Amino acid sequence: MADTAEPLAYRDESLPITERVEDLLDRMTLDEKVGQLVGTWAGELGETKDLEDVESEIVDHGVGAVASFGWAGAHDTRLDEVVETVNRLQEVARSETRLGVPLLFNVDAVHGHAYVSEGTAFPNGLGMAATRNESLAESTAAITADEVRATGAHQNYSPTCDVARDPRWGRTFETFGESPYLCGNLAAAKVRGYQGDGLDDSSVIATAKHFPAYGEPVRGEDASPAEVSEYALRNTFVPPFVEALRAGVDSVMPAYNATNGEPAHGSSPLLTEYLRGELGFDGTIVSDWNGVRMLHEDHRVTADHRGSVRRTREAGLDLASVDAVDHAEEYRSLVEAGDLPESLVDESVRRVLRLKFDLGLFEDPFVDPEAADATVGTDEHRRRSLDAARQSMTLLSNDGQLPLDTDADVLVAGPNADDPINQLGGWSVPDPEGTDVVTIREAVESMSTGTVTYERGAGIDERADVDAAAAAAENADVAVVALGENWYLHEFGPNAISGTGTDEFPNRTELELPAAQRDLVEAIARTGTPVVGILVTGRPLAVDRLADRAASLLMAYYPGTMGGRAVAETLYGENDPSGRLPISIPRSTGQLPTRFNYLPHPTPIGPDEHPDSYDPLFPFGHGKSYATFEYGEIDLTETTIEPGESTTVTVPVTNTSDRPGTAVADLYVRPTVSSRVRPVRELRGFDRVSLAAGESATVEIQLSAESLGLANRDGSREVEPGTYTVELGDREAAVTVTRADD
Amino acid sequence: MADTAEPLAYRDESLPITERVEDLLDRMTLDEKVGQLVGTWAGELGETKDLEDVESEIVDHGVGAVASFGWAGAHDTRLDEVVETVNRLQEVARSETRLGVPLLFNVDAVHGHAYVSEGTAFPNGLGMAATRNESLAESTAAITADEVRATGAHQNYSPTCDVARDPRWGRTFETFGESPYLCGNLAAAKVRGYQGDGLDDSSVIATAKHFPAYGEPVRGEDASPAEVSEYALRNTFVPPFVEALRAGVDSVMPAYNATNGEPAHGSSPLLTEYLRGELGFDGTIVSDWNGVRMLHEDHRVTADHRGSVRRTREAGLDLASVDAVDHAEEYRSLVEAGDLPESLVDESVRRVLRLKFDLGLFEDPFVDPEAADATVGTDEHRRRSLDAARQSMTLLSNDGQLPLDTDADVLVAGPNADDPINQLGGWSVPDPEGTDVVTIREAVESMSTGTVTYERGAGIDERADVDAAAAAAENADVAVVALGENWYLHEFGPNAISGTGTDEFPNRTELELPAAQRDLVEAIARTGTPVVGILVTGRPLAVDRLADRAASLLMAYYPGTMGGRAVAETLYGENDPSGRLPISIPRSTGQLPTRFNYLPHPTPIGPDEHPDSYDPLFPFGHGKSYATFEYGEIDLTETTIEPGESTTVTVPVTNTSDRPGTAVADLYVRPTVSSRVRPVRELRGFDRVSLAAGESATVEIQLSAESLGLANRDGSREVEPGTYTVELGDREAAVTVTRADD
Repeated sequence: MADTAEPLAYRDESLPITERVEDLLDRMTLDEKVGQLVGTWAGELGETKDLEDVESEIVDHGVGAVASFGWAGAHDTRLDEVVETVNRLQEVARSETRLGVPLLFNVDAVHGHAYVSEGTAFPNGLGMAATRNESLAESTAAITADEVRATGAHQNYSPTCDVARDPRWGRTFETFGESPYLCGNLAAAKVRGYQGDGLDDSSVIATAKHFPAYGEPVRGEDASPAEVSEYALRNTFVPPFVEALRAGVDSVMPAYNATNGEPAHGSSPLLTEYLRGELGFDGTIVSDWNGVRMLHEDHRVTADHRGSVRRTREAGLDLASVDAVDHAEEYRSLVEAGDLPESLVDESVRRVLRLKFDLGLFEDPFVDPEAADATVGTDEHRRRSLDAARQSMTLLSNDGQLPLDTDADVLVAGPNADDPINQLGGWSVPDPEGTDVVTIREAVESMSTGTVTYERGAGIDERADVDAAAAAAENADVAVVALGENWYLHEFGPNAISGTGTDEFPNRTELELPAAQRDLVEAIARTGTPVVGILVTGRPLAVDRLADRAASLLMAYYPGTMGGRAVAETLYGENDPSGRLPISIPRSTGQLPTRFNYLPHPTPIGPDEHPDSYDPLFPFGHGKSYATFEYGEIDLTETTIEPGESTTVTVPVTNTSDRPGTAVADLYVRPTVSSRVRPVRELRGFDRVSLAAGESATVEIQLSAESLGLANRDGSREVEPGTYTVELGDREAAVTVTRADD
Repeated sequence: MADTAEPLAYRDESLPITERVEDLLDRMTLDEKVGQLVGTWAGELGETKDLEDVESEIVDHGVGAVASFGWAGAHDTRLDEVVETVNRLQEVARSETRLGVPLLFNVDAVHGHAYVSEGTAFPNGLGMAATRNESLAESTAAITADEVRATGAHQNYSPTCDVARDPRWGRTFETFGESPYLCGNLAAAKVRGYQGDGLDDSSVIATAKHFPAYGEPVRGEDASPAEVSEYALRNTFVPPFVEALRAGVDSVMPAYNATNGEPAHGSSPLLTEYLRGELGFDGTIVSDWNGVRMLHEDHRVTADHRGSVRRTREAGLDLASVDAVDHAEEYRSLVEAGDLPESLVDESVRRVLRLKFDLGLFEDPFVDPEAADATVGTDEHRRRSLDAARQSMTLLSNDGQLPLDTDADVLVAGPNADDPINQLGGWSVPDPEGTDVVTIREAVESMSTGTVTYERGAGIDERADVDAAAAAAENADVAVVALGENWYLHEFGPNAISGTGTDEFPNRTELELPAAQRDLVEAIARTGTPVVGILVTGRPLAVDRLADRAASLLMAYYPGTMGGRAVAETLYGENDPSGRLPISIPRSTGQLPTRFNYLPHPTPIGPDEHPDSYDPLFPFGHGKSYATFEYGEIDLTETTIEPGESTTVTVPVTNTSDRPGTAVADLYVRPTVSSRVRPVRELRGFDRVSLAAGESATVEIQLSAESLGLANRDGSREVEPGTYTVELGDREAAVTVTRADD
């Protein structure tokens, strides 16, 4: 039992943390040390895992970290229960272990504290990326940090730095899309939002994941191996991690999958040589759920659990989640057998303890239930969630149906019009009881002054009431049909839309809308009533036919708590749709990949260009406003820059319409010549400007020479001298990079 | 003008070739040297390029090589005209150039000498791989060499060493499929067939192509960049090239595409460091058609043609095709300007001259028209083509309809039942006039003793006469419906099936059968007459629905000159279908890739296994015989081997049916544990045994420790100690590898 009366140096707040860490480390047995390097889970509190078992892991084995919530299938997600559990376990750690080291609680609050019923869910990653709003990403992450910390958790397994390169991947919704720049920019913003100016008693540890190349799984199957070249690794997949590191991210999570033949969790070349050595990361490396065991169970690069513990520890892992006691015992035994040095243990323990000191947990590991209640899911947080959802709304097409008159008679239909679970999207409470979500149906009903009818018409993948929906459409001025997907259902794998599949869609590797939804749209469209399609989906679906049939089409992503309201405001013109696609939408599954930043390639046989049908249905960057904008000529403060220098790219923009709107401009670059092939277009900046009718402003974006660089053959990054084309708005200009010594 | 009376050392047959090369090199001007390093083309003789222009390139610029035929769109492909042209140009080179260096003619005789109307076309690569017959690949290549050499050509741009990893790729038919082992085994066999025991006056230079990684283009678009890891490069894509090199291949062609950010044609790391240095290749590196210009025109890694010439030459290119004079002049100018050393020129000239001496061209560059006529397309060669096609026939499914009774009344239908062009497949004369192809329809008509009706019913992608076909089916006992694709049409890109596409199939990135063919099958199937589907296609199509509707399904690939006969013999049971799939057939396009040798990956979320629907429709290795076989227990001569050693794996097999048949057994291996992830299954051998009813035999395959190796992190290849599971027939056994010093 800890004796808090004893004058121990590590408990002395006035001493430097380094000293406190060393003091504590010196006092620890090997058993206590390895306990600090493993985490257990309590995700199904009161269900399959008894809380007393967790307590025993803490008391008997010194387990130092707990995944408190954040795993799908968790129950008892109510705020008061979460807080009670956290405090109870911290009390056990404080008073029933020899040294009283506090616990580190981790959580998957990837788009808000959405695994707590009362928490605020923001749009998922893809929707956030559509906003092209770095400060929004930061401020919503800061809100998330407040809510997470208020419930007693300390480490967030966010941001996702994965670049999404195959929309068949069921986890595409978690990412910021297909541009490495956009992914890095927003990941860094979230790191700043979570961690603030540095870890302290009000911040949360950010975790950049999944290092290094997780976003292009073979066949879209989650965690399948990354078939990526060193070129793609350095120029596509790792840059977002570099940005997260620059923003000071304190933790990195390796990917489940293998890159270049090596599972990341057990790869010394990836974790120690590359991440720690070359990229200079000195924070903690934390395993993904069961990532250690996968080395022998799935990848077969080790023979057994002992081999996996050894390999992951040699590779550089600090904190292993899930199989807490087993892992700790193997680790201890490997050290005792002389297979691993105790210095390896000490190095990791220092990192973990430092985090706990930085977070102030030795001073106070407890949270106040009333403060939690006053922090989580406040009206202000919900307003900020609505604001984010508004900015994410991406109008794909519009033949003039939108915006709707408020007095129009509206049929609301489709499987996702009144489904709070799908609206929240992945990594959210699986049961929204206690969660106050505003659905599309509710919001339209509250805003309309006409007659609103609701007929679901079809489920995600099952036929239902199509006739009733069509009949209702006959009497409506417009049909708002909310289509899309479930976020992945755990029991059927990450691509599954349902367990059984259908003849036409045996599994969700096909990105076309399921037949049930296509039939619903067809039946309504046949009535002659215009169809406004809303896509509630976390990935681009191949909606070629829908785009043909719908008068207007709005991409809503998984918009979060207030998403229904944001959709309705957009439908009625109260919100100008200013989202821009962060990922291309293909015409068909076979067309994949359709990313905008593809590498050029020859057409050795045939015409100079491939047929037009190879173009995506809607490209990256696409999104319509209700207003119209006109851009002037691009101006650059410097047209010639050296490495280390920057230029400011500006372009005047005028709202030429009679309504307010938001102009969003992406800045793209391409070199004229480069020593290794470069994408035909790369995103290197963006800006958004809200303009009243007739108003003008200037879009201004900094462009550094460094951001024009690419990885050399030896892996170093270099800006090649030469001319680069800069696109902004709908204009082009050129900037020349010269060598400093030219 | 050459004065052949002069006693020049290089003309002295009695001197060693090295001496003759050096003598000739010493006499050459820089102009003459660079002329030897470029090739021109005469592919559209008499059409767009006047033969006199070719002569002028030879006489005025010393161009040393000519692509005589082999490019689609070529005309005047008749044997007599080809021979006449070749002799005429050789005469010009001999008598109208100062040194009289003979020309090197190259050709794309990739599946037989099929660009000469009278030439013998064997099954294309995929069909040849289905035969699992190394000696057949060698002997048919030897026939091709005879036919090629008889028409005056010397270098064959074959074998293809590309491992096919995306069936959307229109050039899948040229490959030996998805197993690196199978690709390497057959490529090496073809090298031996082309080159014999070494280059001489009866052999042809083989060209391993397209180095290093051409078979997994992004989105299936030909020549798009290879996104492959160093692991995949060394363990998947390069091994077939290593086998070709071991077989002594004299030439290698770089790929059009970029690997690891570098277009192969201009990559010193790939061509000089890897191919020449690490792999030890010392033959000629010859460019693909226009491969040099692509560096600036497409890849944009150089600014202009001069930059591309410089970069390709620095990278290691010896012989540049197509833009002969322009390339030679840039090269000379670069040397004169001191940008490239003349020693680089000399090195390549030595290699090219050595080939011409080896081939005996200085002694006699001419061919005899009568000998050509007696060699090309003989009855014996056609019989060998039939034999190859027979062995390639792959029976995918059979509910008992096959074999047919000869007196059955048969409807022959479908777009590929009577289409000689599609039956020949790619890289064949585009106009089969003068080509004596036996089509499926003709062969069925000649073998049947019943009534044979022919109604095409549908084109590849256009609706036609479906009703007539269905009506005819009513009166038939069985409908033989030959479906599939055109081989790629040059004017519409390598994936195109037609220029316009349809609503349902905007392009051929979708692998489902076109609607017109599906409708034809549906209409015939509805009559109740059993459908026997024949797939005449060079790649796996997603024929899930067809497999449901057809009573039996036969994969015929592009079977060549005698393919129709081989199909008919299989239908009537005169030939036992012994082909085994060299590539998996997917259920749907979105399911890609479905290769058998995938790397294992975890299923972090969801069930232990992905749904069954992720399995391919028909896997690699699938193929049914009319006979039935029973395998006994596997026996290994050694169950423990060291690096450098081998074991012999045998398994007894008995034909348990009442008819003769061919048992084909693939040998697969997998390690229990390996330091880097390994495929779940790798092919490492195969054997075929023809057995009379009731007969037994033993399948015997050598398995070397070396073939169990994989690439290390440093690129070296190593056999890891451990236990490997060996599958043969339907049995399993284990072999253990120990270190030599254990």
